[in-house]
Amino acid sequence: MILNNQDILSLSERYRAHFINSLSGYKSANLIGTKDLNGRENLSIVSSVFHLGANPPLMGVIFRPHSVRRDTLENILETETYTINHVNSLIWKEAHQTSARYNEGQSEFDETGLTPYYYADFEAPFVAQSQVKIGLKLRQHQTIELNKTVLVIGEIVHVEVDDNAVKEDGFVNLEQLDTVAVSGLDCYHTASKIDRLEYAKPDIPTTCKT
Amino acid sequence: MILNNQDILSLSERYRAHFINSLSGYKSANLIGTKDLNGRENLSIVSSVFHLGANPPLMGVIFRPHSVRRDTLENILETETYTINHVNSLIWKEAHQTSARYNEGQSEFDETGLTPYYYADFEAPFVAQSQVKIGLKLRQHQTIELNKTVLVIGEIVHVEVDDNAVKEDGFVNLEQLDTVAVSGLDCYHTASKIDRLEYAKPDIPTTCKT
Repeated sequence: MILNNQDILSLSERYRAHFINSLSGYKSANLIGTKDLNGRENLSIVSSVFHLGANPPLMGVIFRPHSVRRDTLENILETETYTINHVNSLIWKEAHQTSARYNEGQSEFDETGLTPYYYADFEAPFVAQSQVKIGLKLRQHQTIELNKTVLVIGEIVHVEVDDNAVKEDGFVNLEQLDTVAVSGLDCYHTASKIDRLEYAKPDIPTTCKT
Repeated sequence: MILNNQDILSLSERYRAHFINSLSGYKSANLIGTKDLNGRENLSIVSSVFHLGANPPLMGVIFRPHSVRRDTLENILETETYTINHVNSLIWKEAHQTSARYNEGQSEFDETGLTPYYYADFEAPFVAQSQVKIGLKLRQHQTIELNKTVLVIGEIVHVEVDDNAVKEDGFVNLEQLDTVAVSGLDCYHTASKIDRLEYAKPDIPTTCKT
């Protein structure tokens, strides 16, 4: 099918949400752990975490417009501390379930059976079952005026990951850690490596690393 | 391993790039097609495309600091028109090869064998071999002061995708289209569906769609 701008705008709201969400390709599946100022824990699945830079180590995440109750964003803005935890194939259903609208005061940890894990004096809860646990400090946030989404940028200040999955050059083997991917609004995937490729150079054929 | 902020900052530049790039999880693999004001074509692989919103239909992409020659970003800023094309398992090597630093005047289309495809009067080249072709108009760009990366936001004005891969609710089956994912700087993956899940509600068990 071929759609132009008008075709897209005339799609039903729900169809368009599924369709456009699928178009960017595979997305990361992460759980964001926070606490509010009263110490109540919150956990929320997001597919909008992205790499922003390695030096300093920054990650971005997009939150939908600030119109409904969104504990995670508010907690991040108030406490400036949060965790990002990879979703794996043992907890993908529990992770998805955190997107249900629980009542205020209900913790998604309690409701889904995922286990909060704390490291030293880092204030925000990690997910014990996650194989990649990342602690961040808020560095910047801004509203994207085009659609009122909020871009939150954090600096990575803590990482926990199994030594065996980190290769000599720093590459982390996500398959070994069982990390899953998302497509669209609700489809979860495992991944299978095709190969790693050498840094590309003109006039040299593309070369596999293994 | 457990790393804190200081540990991360003391990693070697190259190791840190591999490591931090891996931490956000699986990333989309896309080719961005552009033309400069003289009509010369450019094609560039990126793993930094992300979904920003469905209404209006927006996609974001992050470009590294504006210090080296970066034709793609310049072309987008000058022509305000570009394409995003999914990388699939038949063209992953050619797609990766577009990241080589070719001389000015060399087209990555010519060098890699990927084929430019034009639709009606849309100015920027699509990739013929891609199964998901998206045409965009620049809507906003800004420099992220924390690390001088540039965030480019475009509105989707054209989509080409096989009807058979678009499901009744608008969900696009990326596996059917052979779209690949990236992890870290250089690892490519195919994906296998675990399942789609129903919209989560409190007190209702997580339910598969199929």
